Order: sequence, then structure tokens, then C-alpha cells
Amino acid sequence: MRSDIDRLMEQANIDALWVSGNLFNNPDMVYLTGIHHVNQADLFKLKNRDAILFHFVDMEREEAAKSGLETQPYFTKTPLADYIQQAEGDVSLAIALRIKEAMQSCGLSSGTVAISGQLDLAPQYAILEKLKVIVPRIDFTSFYKDSPFLTARMTKDEEEIAQIRAMGKLTTEVIGRVQRFLQACDVKDSQLVHDDGRPLTVRDVKNRINLWLAELGAENPEDTIFAIGRDGGIPHSSGNPDDAITLGQAIVFDIFPRQAGGGYFYDITRTWCLGYAPQPVQDLYQQVLDVHHKLIDNLKQGTAFKDYQAMTCEMFTARGHVTIAQDLTTREGYLHSIGHGLGLNIHEKPFSGLTAAPDDILAPGVVFTIEPGLYYPKRGMGVRIEDTIYLNQQGRFEIVAKYPYDLVIPVG
Amino acid sequence: MRSDIDRLMEQANIDALWVSGNLFNNPDMVYLTGIHHVNQADLFKLKNRDAILFHFVDMEREEAAKSGLETQPYFTKTPLADYIQQAEGDVSLAIALRIKEAMQSCGLSSGTVAISGQLDLAPQYAILEKLKVIVPRIDFTSFYKDSPFLTARMTKDEEEIAQIRAMGKLTTEVIGRVQRFLQACDVKDSQLVHDDGRPLTVRDVKNRINLWLAELGAENPEDTIFAIGRDGGIPHSSGNPDDAITLGQAIVFDIFPRQAGGGYFYDITRTWCLGYAPQPVQDLYQQVLDVHHKLIDNLKQGTAFKDYQAMTCEMFTARGHVTIAQDLTTREGYLHSIGHGLGLNIHEKPFSGLTAAPDDILAPGVVFTIEPGLYYPKRGMGVRIEDTIYLNQQGRFEIVAKYPYDLVIPVG
Repeated sequence: MRSDIDRLMEQANIDALWVSGNLFNNPDMVYLTGIHHVNQADLFKLKNRDAILFHFVDMEREEAAKSGLETQPYFTKTPLADYIQQAEGDVSLAIALRIKEAMQSCGLSSGTVAISGQLDLAPQYAILEKLKVIVPRIDFTSFYKDSPFLTARMTKDEEEIAQIRAMGKLTTEVIGRVQRFLQACDVKDSQLVHDDGRPLTVRDVKNRINLWLAELGAENPEDTIFAIGRDGGIPHSSGNPDDAITLGQAIVFDIFPRQAGGGYFYDITRTWCLGYAPQPVQDLYQQVLDVHHKLIDNLKQGTAFKDYQAMTCEMFTARGHVTIAQDLTTREGYLHSIGHGLGLNIHEKPFSGLTAAPDDILAPGVVFTIEPGLYYPKRGMGVRIEDTIYLNQQGRFEIVAKYPYDLVIPVG
Repeated sequence: MRSDIDRLMEQANIDALWVSGNLFNNPDMVYLTGIHHVNQADLFKLKNRDAILFHFVDMEREEAAKSGLETQPYFTKTPLADYIQQAEGDVSLAIALRIKEAMQSCGLSSGTVAISGQLDLAPQYAILEKLKVIVPRIDFTSFYKDSPFLTARMTKDEEEIAQIRAMGKLTTEVIGRVQRFLQACDVKDSQLVHDDGRPLTVRDVKNRINLWLAELGAENPEDTIFAIGRDGGIPHSSGNPDDAITLGQAIVFDIFPRQAGGGYFYDITRTWCLGYAPQPVQDLYQQVLDVHHKLIDNLKQGTAFKDYQAMTCEMFTARGHVTIAQDLTTREGYLHSIGHGLGLNIHEKPFSGLTAAPDDILAPGVVFTIEPGLYYPKRGMGVRIEDTIYLNQQGRFEIVAKYPYDLVIPVG
């Protein structure tokens, strides 16, 4: 949680966190500032001190102030032009000089600074290379995954949970609209059709989804997976836009929208068959649903998340499937990790796969997905069932936003 | 243009370009791959060679292939687990080892590599620090602004222009819908109201805008500016969501949406007064409009873009306004740059302000904005008028998508 950051900085021997970039679509930044329309900023958070926000454009001062932090415009007292002159025309050096002053005004002239931010790498790296020269006593470092930010962000406070719940409600509302929309379509030659008889396509469905998400205040930065038949057998195939929606084919519908501006995600998957489900799809579905329920029933506070990956592989192996426990490069059977933490990033700590860290534990406050799946692209099908789960402070696991698990969706 | 990249690499003494990140919302990547649902990838473009795309997740192989480039999954032959073992559990080193192999397979084991990508800085920097150790003969560098990518991207080819035109058409369609929507509202106590009598707010208008953009296939990653009265006097204020829409106040409406998934932007601003415009607003508006027309009439191929900034300051100074030519930190008068290039980034080369480079010239193929404005927050008003302009291969400047310049929008 946010309240853990100072302790985590201490543990990691970090004197300051430096987040660069926008005050939107920038998880570490938004975590401490909220979402505001500020385009270029640097946040410095020293250990046991409040964060201070420096922003580039004076015109954005009121937006920056909405963060509730102490804010300072970079170029109000001394314009950028003066720094550029001082740097003999080298703009990245000019900015580095100003950042150096900002650091000094925070009391930061030596020590270890962990950098982060969702941003354009090229200019930031250019500035950083200059800074290394002009503030040689600061050691700039970064974390691959286990930064104080990401570890703090792994457990959510009440305010964050409220936002994730709102996203869950919104997302399941959209799933319901999609279901009712598909059910209201006419059927012709085993395909859904528009009122004028043209086949409905995956593109049409996704357009509707984006419209409904926007209407309800969400954005969809990573697209939706709506993958039919063989495409559903490739877990990350997002679906062929031109595909018609054919009855009796398994549709993997994985939706993971975000609060507009780069807030919290939600993540849920259902597998549907319109009209009827052939026996092989029913069999596969039942196995995935059984494993899904068993996993959720067996969740225990304090367990390593990756233990559930091992458990999933065991359960699918026992049911006769190849899993990545036997073959890390398999393209059939069970071939991804059982879930991931979820928050301001769609994938964040705790992790359950290969890159899981020792502290990726189901501790109170974690929000994570459970998403078993089985994939047989050559047999033209895939099944995945996913829910987002919250382990609350009372030690109870709860599905954040429920949605029925029906495989067959009656149509026509 | 894309066809200039090899020449620009040669000029800049760059042996290879390395773009990391997603195949969406990632300008340098999308420039060479198009928009596809691939989550983590590295593109290597060696001088005079086709780009090669390496992607992390085998499941995304079909999405990656849609780029039309030679693609290779990172961990199909040798799973990530083996690299992690080789790296003794250090995941960022494991990935660096794999990237080193990828570089070698491209024939890249020494020389200067320019890095870029819109991504999460922390893990990328961690990988880079490891790479510097294990491939010491490669010099990793980056450009603050004038990279071969950004210079190539400054001039657009026919395919890009077609996409920007489509975005212009879409954006002006949305402006028209906003205008008609406001005009259809009832008026009560000089404010626009909903059918049930509640005041219409800036939030309501922005929600409509997002809905219409989504419906038409666009996204709105940087929000819309819909700033009324005093807020319009602060150029980057996005508008107070709770503000009512009051007649007779200048509204700065600046809309800059993007093709869904991180494609091309469009950018246009109109200033409106609903019902009527007080004389001071009319006067300010007329001055900005005159300058806008004069600037567009005076555009000449081959001119430095920043010359138009100087011209704008002169024209506004002659009309009695303070400009940043006299006072770089002014908060009144004319206080920003006259425009910016526009493409896969909302702000890109050519630039017209302080950071303009010698090659920020109006050359055939450039797409840029012209956006004079005057700002008087203490007098409760601001005015900006902006169009996006294309200099075609025949040397003709054209406004990409036109929209009327009416200040007063009749209502009620």
C-alpha cells in the first residue's frame, strides 16, 4: 500500500524515487498524483518525505496543483531559454541542468535514486546520460519488477478497491450488454446477422464494446480479445476483425478495460458458445470450469501465488493435458500462467509464472486474476475462464464482480 | 518519410535503431509495424537492412506476423526459464542475454545503437544496464528529439496523409456533433440545461465527445480541452468538469484525438461563445482570427517553422499584447509556440518554439498546426484558433479538415 513506500525504500536502500512523464497513463505517477492533465513532470519522493512535483509547462500549474502535492513549475523563475543558452544549445543538457536544481531543492545531491515512468524512452535516456555527468554523486538505478512502487502497489487500500470495484461493475455491465446484443441478433446460415442480413463480425462486436466502455467512462488501451474457434485456441490472439460470429464455436471473450486517463484495470474472461456447444467444447469447458472453481475454493492467505500455477498444471495433467510444467514451449493444452496482480497495470505483482518473486504472496490487499484455460488451435477451439479476486483485510477472498458462467448463450 | 531512414541513420552515424515496447501506443514501433496486439517486442533496424521484430510471447506470433516484418519469438527454441537459470535468477539479466542473442542474429555485435520506445522506463533501464555489461562493444545512445525516426516521421507519405485526413474528417464530424448538441439544449438563467432542467456541465460535454470518438473509431488519450471563461485564459487548462455552460463566455474547444490503438492524431481548436459574444471577446477573437489567416496566407515552402513564431509575436505585439518574445514567463497575452508537427505523436517535428531544430523546416510532406491564441485569465477569457495543415508534394499548403470559424453559436 501507499503507506508502505518509505519502509520499502529503506529495505531496498533507495534514497529517492523519481517518476517522470505525464500525470495520466503513467502508473507510478498516477499512484501518487491521481489522474490530471499535466503533460511532462518529474516527481521526487525522498524517503520519509512527501513527494514533490515539478512540471514543465507553467500553463499546466492548476492541473498540477490538483494532485494535492507540493508543485513547482520548472521554468517560471528562469525560462528554459536561459538554460538552453547555458547548455550552448543542447536541449537535453538544459533540461538536465534544471532537473539537477530541482533535485538539489529537494535536498537530493547524492545517494541512490530509482527511476521509473511510462514515457518516451529516447528523450528521457538522453537527459539521464547528461545528468549522470552533472550529478556524479547520484547513482541512478531501476528495478526490473520489484521496485518499492510495484511492491507497494501490490496491496490495495480501500480507496483503490473502491475504484477496482467500480471498474468491475462497469465491465460486467458491458459483458451483459454484449450478451444481450448477440442474443437479439437474427441468425442466418448458422451466423449472426445484422437487421439488413449482413453477417455480424468480430469488428462490429468490438466497436460496440468500445462504445459502451466510453459511455460508462472507461478506455480500452489494450483492446479486447473476442476470438472465435481456432483463434480462441491461441491465448493472446485478439480475434480476426472480419470473422463472422458462427453458432456452435467457442468464443474466448477476455475484456480488460481501464478507468479513463490511466486508472485502474479490471480483467475478466468468459467463454461462450452461441446457440449450442458441441460435445468436445462442452467437455473442455467443464474441465476448465472445474479447475477454476477448485482453485478459487483453495485460495489461502499467505500462500505463494505460484503454488497455484503448480496446482493448475497438476490438475490439467491429471485430466490428460500437456502443460507448461512438462513442456515450456507447448502450443497446446495449458500454456500460460494462472494469473497476475492487477491495478494501475493490467499485469503487476503478484505474479504466478516464471518471473514470480519470493514476495509474490497472497497477502491481504492483493487483487489478482485466476484464469485457467485449455487451448487446442488445431482442433479449432480454446477455453478460458477468468475472474478478478480481492483478498480483503479480514482474510476473505472475494470475486470483485461476478458474472454467470454459462457456456451456451441461446440465440435466435 | 520512411524511405529516408537509412540516409538519416547514415547522417547520424547510427548503425542500428532499437525500438522496444508494444505494437500499439508506441509511435516509433507503430511507424514500422502498424498497430497490432503484441505486448512486448524489440525491433532492430540495421542500416540498409529490413527491420526484424522479436516478440516475447509465443502466443502473440500471429499478431506479430501481421506487421509484415520478419518476426521471431524470443523463447520458442529456448524457454525463458533456461535463460533465468543461466542468469542465476536475475530476470533482467536473463532477458538481456536473450536480447544479446537477438542482436547477434541480426549481425549486430558492435557499433552505435539508438534506443527508443514508449514504454515503462524501469524494467527497460534495468535490462539496458545489464546489456551494457554483456555487449560492451555496443554503444547505446538516444536522441532528445532529432532522431532518425523523428526526422523521418516529420514528412508524411501518401499512406500517412490518408490516415491523417481520415482523422481530420472524424474530428470535425465530432465538432459538428458537439455544436449541434449544444444548440439543441434548452437555456435557463443563461446556462445550457438538460431536458430535466439540470445544468449541462463540461463533464457532460466531454462524455459525449468520448462517446462519439469511440463510435467513430478514435481514442482520446490526452483528453479534450473544453475550457470556459477564465479557464480558457490558461492555454492548457482542460476545463473544470463541474463548470456549467454559460452563454456569452468564450469557450476554448481544443480537440486532439488519435486513431484507436495509437495511430495518427488530429488537432483543431475553435473558440465559441454561445448565444452572444461580449464586445471584449469579439475584439480578442477578431485579432486572433486575423493573425491566423495572415499566418496561413504567408506560409512558404522551405521556411523555418520558427520564423512564423517570430511573425506571430510581431503581429500580436503590434496589436498591443505582451508576447513571450518580450517576456518568456508571461501569463497573459501570447505565450506559447505557434504550432507543432503532428503525426503518431501529438507534438513532433517540426517544432516552432524554443526547442526548434535547424531542420524544422516547412518541407513537402510536413503536417503541422497553426494555433495563435490570446490569453487573459484575469479578464476571464482566452481565445485560440487552430488548424492542422499539410504541405503537399506539389508545394501547396492545405488545411486538412476545414471547420467554420464562427465565434457566436446561436442557442435556445
